[in-house]
Amino acid sequence: MKEKNTVKQKPEEVTSLVKGSLLVFMKTKKTKKKELINVAVIGSSGYTGSETIRLLSRHPKVSIKLLMGDKSRGKNISEIFSHFSGTSLPTIKKFDAKNLENIDVLFSCMPSGKLSAIIDKIPKKVVVIDLSADFRFKDKKLYKEYYGFNFNDVVAKSFTYGLTEIFRSKIKKSRLIACPGCYPTSVLLPLVPLIKYKKIRKQGIIIDSKSGISGAGRNTKEELLFAENYNSISAYGNNNHRHIPEMEHNLFLATKTKTKLSFTPHILPINRGILSTIYVKGEPQNIFDTLNKYYDREKFIKINHFNSLPSISDVTGSNLCRIGIMKNKRNQYTTIISVIDNLLKGASGQAVQNMNNIFGFQEDLGLDQLSFCP
Amino acid sequence: MKEKNTVKQKPEEVTSLVKGSLLVFMKTKKTKKKELINVAVIGSSGYTGSETIRLLSRHPKVSIKLLMGDKSRGKNISEIFSHFSGTSLPTIKKFDAKNLENIDVLFSCMPSGKLSAIIDKIPKKVVVIDLSADFRFKDKKLYKEYYGFNFNDVVAKSFTYGLTEIFRSKIKKSRLIACPGCYPTSVLLPLVPLIKYKKIRKQGIIIDSKSGISGAGRNTKEELLFAENYNSISAYGNNNHRHIPEMEHNLFLATKTKTKLSFTPHILPINRGILSTIYVKGEPQNIFDTLNKYYDREKFIKINHFNSLPSISDVTGSNLCRIGIMKNKRNQYTTIISVIDNLLKGASGQAVQNMNNIFGFQEDLGLDQLSFCP
Amino acid sequence: MKEKNTVKQKPEEVTSLVKGSLLVFMKTKKTKKKELINVAVIGSSGYTGSETIRLLSRHPKVSIKLLMGDKSRGKNISEIFSHFSGTSLPTIKKFDAKNLENIDVLFSCMPSGKLSAIIDKIPKKVVVIDLSADFRFKDKKLYKEYYGFNFNDVVAKSFTYGLTEIFRSKIKKSRLIACPGCYPTSVLLPLVPLIKYKKIRKQGIIIDSKSGISGAGRNTKEELLFAENYNSISAYGNNNHRHIPEMEHNLFLATKTKTKLSFTPHILPINRGILSTIYVKGEPQNIFDTLNKYYDREKFIKINHFNSLPSISDVTGSNLCRIGIMKNKRNQYTTIISVIDNLLKGASGQAVQNMNNIFGFQEDLGLDQLSFCP
Amino acid sequence: MKEKNTVKQKPEEVTSLVKGSLLVFMKTKKTKKKELINVAVIGSSGYTGSETIRLLSRHPKVSIKLLMGDKSRGKNISEIFSHFSGTSLPTIKKFDAKNLENIDVLFSCMPSGKLSAIIDKIPKKVVVIDLSADFRFKDKKLYKEYYGFNFNDVVAKSFTYGLTEIFRSKIKKSRLIACPGCYPTSVLLPLVPLIKYKKIRKQGIIIDSKSGISGAGRNTKEELLFAENYNSISAYGNNNHRHIPEMEHNLFLATKTKTKLSFTPHILPINRGILSTIYVKGEPQNIFDTLNKYYDREKFIKINHFNSLPSISDVTGSNLCRIGIMKNKRNQYTTIISVIDNLLKGASGQAVQNMNNIFGFQEDLGLDQLSFCP
Repeated sequence: MKEKNTVKQKPEEVTSLVKGSLLVFMKTKKTKKKELINVAVIGSSGYTGSETIRLLSRHPKVSIKLLMGDKSRGKNISEIFSHFSGTSLPTIKKFDAKNLENIDVLFSCMPSGKLSAIIDKIPKKVVVIDLSADFRFKDKKLYKEYYGFNFNDVVAKSFTYGLTEIFRSKIKKSRLIACPGCYPTSVLLPLVPLIKYKKIRKQGIIIDSKSGISGAGRNTKEELLFAENYNSISAYGNNNHRHIPEMEHNLFLATKTKTKLSFTPHILPINRGILSTIYVKGEPQNIFDTLNKYYDREKFIKINHFNSLPSISDVTGSNLCRIGIMKNKRNQYTTIISVIDNLLKGASGQAVQNMNNIFGFQEDLGLDQLSFCP
Repeated sequence: MKEKNTVKQKPEEVTSLVKGSLLVFMKTKKTKKKELINVAVIGSSGYTGSETIRLLSRHPKVSIKLLMGDKSRGKNISEIFSHFSGTSLPTIKKFDAKNLENIDVLFSCMPSGKLSAIIDKIPKKVVVIDLSADFRFKDKKLYKEYYGFNFNDVVAKSFTYGLTEIFRSKIKKSRLIACPGCYPTSVLLPLVPLIKYKKIRKQGIIIDSKSGISGAGRNTKEELLFAENYNSISAYGNNNHRHIPEMEHNLFLATKTKTKLSFTPHILPINRGILSTIYVKGEPQNIFDTLNKYYDREKFIKINHFNSLPSISDVTGSNLCRIGIMKNKRNQYTTIISVIDNLLKGASGQAVQNMNNIFGFQEDLGLDQLSFCP
Repeated sequence: MKEKNTVKQKPEEVTSLVKGSLLVFMKTKKTKKKELINVAVIGSSGYTGSETIRLLSRHPKVSIKLLMGDKSRGKNISEIFSHFSGTSLPTIKKFDAKNLENIDVLFSCMPSGKLSAIIDKIPKKVVVIDLSADFRFKDKKLYKEYYGFNFNDVVAKSFTYGLTEIFRSKIKKSRLIACPGCYPTSVLLPLVPLIKYKKIRKQGIIIDSKSGISGAGRNTKEELLFAENYNSISAYGNNNHRHIPEMEHNLFLATKTKTKLSFTPHILPINRGILSTIYVKGEPQNIFDTLNKYYDREKFIKINHFNSLPSISDVTGSNLCRIGIMKNKRNQYTTIISVIDNLLKGASGQAVQNMNNIFGFQEDLGLDQLSFCP
Repeated sequence: MKEKNTVKQKPEEVTSLVKGSLLVFMKTKKTKKKELINVAVIGSSGYTGSETIRLLSRHPKVSIKLLMGDKSRGKNISEIFSHFSGTSLPTIKKFDAKNLENIDVLFSCMPSGKLSAIIDKIPKKVVVIDLSADFRFKDKKLYKEYYGFNFNDVVAKSFTYGLTEIFRSKIKKSRLIACPGCYPTSVLLPLVPLIKYKKIRKQGIIIDSKSGISGAGRNTKEELLFAENYNSISAYGNNNHRHIPEMEHNLFLATKTKTKLSFTPHILPINRGILSTIYVKGEPQNIFDTLNKYYDREKFIKINHFNSLPSISDVTGSNLCRIGIMKNKRNQYTTIISVIDNLLKGASGQAVQNMNNIFGFQEDLGLDQLSFCP
C-alpha cells in the first residue's frame, strides 16, 4: 500500500472516485484556487475539539465558519478554553443541519455515540471527519459489547478508517472518515507492515502502552483529578480496553491476518503523548529494515536508528509518529517503541492530515511543526 | 506555507535610517523579493539555541545556512536534541568569521560573556541578534558586579534592547539587538506604560516571579536535576538577581524614571513559562485602561478582561504575553499578572520577532501559533 | 467554655481546669498509663480526612474506634483511598451521636458548614478538633460574606484557634479547637512575633502564596483536573480569599494590632506544600533574631540560616514549618519565606499536635517524621 | 515511641548459626536489652544514603554514631540535603576502619564498586548491609560484563541476597547482606512463588517496568535534568539492563529454575516508585491464590483483590510491595502488576528490614508507615 507522496492529487481524479457529492465543490476549488474551504467543528468543549480548532485556525487553506456544541452553545470558545482569548472565532451554536449548507468539511469531536444520532441530517456533500469511536470498526456486536450502545450499521460501512499512512488512497476517495483512536494509531503504524509482510509472528504480541492524561478527555471524574495522578502511574482497562477490537479489526483489514493482541494501557502523570512498548517475536534487523523501507517517504513517520529509542518529548506538539526497534540479545523478543502526541497524530493532527488528502492539499499543510523540547 | 512578503515597512526607508551597514543588503533584498534570508545560529547546545533553530526551520522567509557551536561542533543538531531527528540541518561547525560571508543574520545563543569575545570579527553587514545578557544594559560597573566579567563598552553602546513592543522603531533601524531576559520581558511589558504615564507609584513595586526550569538552561547542575525540583518550589537569587539591573536600566530608558524594584524569582517544577505577580499602587481600572489602550493593536500582547487573570498554560508554545489586572478592595495595592513562554516571547520568539521587524517581514511571520492546551 | 489558667503538661492540673468532662478520662489515663484514647473521625472521603486517619492509625496512644461519613457510609476507607488497602479500620458509619459515648476525641474533617449543624448533638465530654473553617474567626458578618452561610455564634465563641505555637496554653485548656487554614498557618507563624514585638511595619505587608493542589480538596471540578494544571500555575481568589479575614482576625487576637493584608494565593502543579513569600518592611537581622529567639525551643518550627531559604521539599511529609529571612540590599523590603506541608502542619498534623497537647502527650507523638526527599 | 524488644527470634540461636563473628555482639545485646545498637552509614551524598539516614534517625532501637563519605566529608548532612536542617547528626567523616570499633552495623550506600575496595578492612564483628550492586550475584564473568569491573570473589560468596520475604531465614543468620536492586525487588517478589510452584511457564516472561527518577541516583547527568524528563517517558537499558543477571541469578537461587527474562525499564517523570507490569502464561485465579497464600502473613506484601491493580501512589512513602493480578479473557497471558517505593522497599526500607531481622527486632520497627496520598 505504498503510495508516493507526490501529492499533487488532481482534484478531477479525486472527485471522479467519490460518490458525486464532492464533485461540485472540487470543481469550484479548481477554478478559484485561492478560495478557502469552509470548515465546521461540532463538539467544542473537549480536548480534541479545542486542538482541532487550534490547528484549523492556523491552517492557510481553511476558514472556520461554524462551531457547534451542546454544553457550550451561546459561548465563545475562549470562555471554555482560556488559551483562545483574543482570537476571533464564531460563537458556538447548537447543531442545526441548515447551518451546514455552505460547509465543505465537518469535524466531529463529540463523545462516542453522538454523531450516529445526527449523521443522517448532515448534507451529503459535506465531508465528515469523525474523531469519536463510532465508526472505527464495523462489528455491531463487538461495538455493543465494548461501548454499550448500538451504532448505525449502514452508515458505519460508508466510513473509511482514517489511519492515513495505511489507508491513504481510500481516504482520498472518501467523504466519511473515522479517525483512529490514539492507542491504535501508535500500535498499528508499526504492526501493519510487519504482519503484512510476515516479519513477526502473529501470536504472542504484547502491547504495553503509556498515555498522558489528556487521552481521557476533559471529564470531571475523581480519577482524573491532579492530586490523584501526580506522583503515580497505574494500569487500567481490565485487559479489555475498547481500543482492542478497533486494533484487531483494522489490523485484519490492512493485513488479512487475524490476531489476538494483549494490550495493557497505563495512565501517565503527563498531559500529552503515548508511548507504546510492543514485544514481538521476529528478527530485529529485519523488522528495522521493513519499517524503514515501508515508511521511507512518509513525512510524519520517522524510524529511529537501530537500537535507538524515541521518547514522548520527541513528538510532543508535532504530528509525528516515531518508531524505534531494539534488539534483545537474550531471547527471541524484539522490542518496538512507538510514540505519538495523542492529541495530534493520535487525534486532531491526523484528522487535519486526512482533510488535506481529501481536498488535495499538501499533506503537511498546517501540520508542519517540529516537536518542541523542553 | 511560504507567504508573500506583504511588508508594510518599506525597506528603503528602513535602510536609510541605519548607519549604512544594512544598506547594501537591503537593496539586494529589494531587488530579489522572493529570495530567502540566510541565517546562522551560534550556540546550538542550549535550550534557547534549539528553540531558535526550531522556529527558524519553519520560518517561510529563512534558510538556515550555518549552525555553530563549541561543545557541539562536528555533530548534527539531532545528536544533541533528539526531537530534531529526521530534519536536514547543516552540521554544527566551530566559529569562523569567514563562514559568515553570505549570512544576513546571526542569532547568538551562547552563554553570557561569549559573544563579546568574537563580536569584532563578525562582518559589519551581518545583523546580530543576541540572546545572552551581554549587551542588555550599558553600565559597565553594574555589569561587572552582576556578571563577574567585563564587556566591550563601545560595542555595548551600539546594541538596541530588543523589547519589541517598547523599542520597535529603534529596533527596526538597528543592526545589533540585545534580546531581553525572560523575567524582564514579563515585567517591563506591563510596567513601562504604567510608569511612563504615571499610573502607578514608582516606589514600592514588588515583583514575585515564578519561572519554569528551562529558564535556567541545559546545565548539568545538581539543583537542576529532576528529583531535586519535582514536588517542590523555591525562591532564589538572594534579592539580587542579575535581571534587576537590566529591568531598572531599561525601565529608565523607556520612561526616564528611576525605580528600585523588589524582585524575587522562584523556580517552578514545570518546563516552560513565567508568571510574574506584580504588586503596584495605583487605581486598578485606570491601570487596566492604560494597558488596554497602549497594547490595543499589538498582536502578541493580550490584556485579559478586568479581574480575570491569565495562567501560564494560556501562553505556552506561543509568542504571547498575557496580562491581567486584579482589583484589591481591601487596600491600595493592585495585582498585575503577566505570563509568557520564557523560551518564546522571553527568548527565541522575541528574537525572531525582532528579525522580522528588521527585515521588513510581517511581525508574526513564523510565530503565529496559538498556545496549546492541555 | 473559657479556661483561665496556664498549664504545662500536668494531666491532673489540666483536668481540674476543664468543666468536668475530661476529668474522668484524664484520671483514668493517669492511673492506667497504657490505655489508649478512643478517637473518632467524621468526614472520611477528603484529603484531610484520610491524612488524619493515616496519622492516627500510627499514633501510639490512639485507638481509632469510629469513622463517620455521609457519602462514604457503609464503606471501608480502603474503598475510598486505595492506599489504606490491607489496614483494618472500622467501617464508615453515618453520624449518630450515640456512637460517641465512649469517644475521647472527635476530628471533624467535613467541609465548612457541616459541623455547625451537628455540634450541639456531640456529647459535652468529647474533645472536638475541627479542620474546617467554621469556627476559625468569630465575626458573623464577615463569615457570612466570605462563606455564604451563617455559623452558630454561641458555639463559635467557645472554639480556640488551634495555631499551636501561638495559642498553646489556651489550646491545652480547651475542649473545642478550630484548626487554622493552611495558608494562615504558613503566614501567621512568621508574622505574629514580628508584629507583636513591632519588628516590622504593620502596613504594606504583601503575601504571595503558592499552594499544592491538595489544598483545594478532593472535589471533582474541572479546574482541579490533572490536564488543567500540569505545566501551569495561576493565581486565584480575586484578592479576597476566604483566608484573609481568618488571618487578620487571629493576627489581631495574638498581637492586638489591626492589619490590612494583601494576599494572593497561587495554585501550583504539585500535590503537597505551601510556600508563602512575605514582603515586609523591617530590618532583616532584627527579624531573623526575633523569629530565632521566639521559636528557639519549638520542635516543629525551624528558622533557616540568615539569607538561606527553605523549599517545599524541605517540609513535605513532616509537621514542620520552616522559615527563611532574606535581606534586600536594594530597598526597604525584607523577604520572608515560610513553607509547610499543607496536609500536615497546615491541617491534620497540627490537629494531632493539638490533640497531643490537650491529652498531655509529648507534643510530637505520632508526628516525629522528617520530610522525605526526593 | 521506643518499644520493647519483643523478639521472637532468640538471639542465642541466631548467633550460633553465624560464623562466630556476631557471637560476642549478640550476647552483649542480650544482657543489655535496652541499649541501642550503634549504626554507621557510608555514602551519605546519594538518595539511598539520605533515605537510610532518615529512617535510622527515627528508628527506636538505633543510635547513628558515624556518617562517612568521600565527597561529603567534613560536612553536616544538612549541607548536602536541606531537609535534614535542624537535626543533630554527626559530621561526615572520611572512611577509617578504626572508627568502626564500636559499630554494630554498617550501611553501605556507596556506588557500586566502592565497597569491594574496603570490605577487608571492616572489623569482622560489624554487620554490613550493602545497598550497591556489588554482591548481589556471584557470577564474576557476568558481573564484569555488566558492571565493567571485578569484584572480590571470595567476599561475594559470603554475602546473602537481602530479599527479605524470600531469604529471611538465611538473612537472620548472616553478617553480610547484599540488598536487592529496586527493579529486582518488584519483579522477584511476585515471580519467585509462581515459578517455584510452577504456576506459570518459565518461558516468555515479559517485564515492562516503569521507575521514578530517584532510582537513577543523584547524578549530575544531562539525561537526569528536570527539563529533559518532565512531560516525557522513555525506555532505556538496551534490553540488557544490569538488573537482568541479578534477577535471573537470584530467581534461580530461590527456585532452582533457569529463566531468560525479557526486561524493559522505562524512566517516569516522577520521583519515587516502580510499577512493573509482568506478562506471564498461567491461570490467573491460580496465580492469585498462590501469591495470596504465600504472602498471607507478610506485613509488607499486600495482594490486591483479584482483577484490582495497585498504583504507585498506593505504596509511596511506605515499605510495602503491592501486587495485583489481572485476568485476560482474550488470550493466555495474565498480567501481574507489582509496585514498590524504590527508595524504601526497593532500597533503604528493605535494608532496615534486614537489620531488624538480624538484630532480632520486630520486622517493621521504624518502618511502619502507611503510604501517603495524595
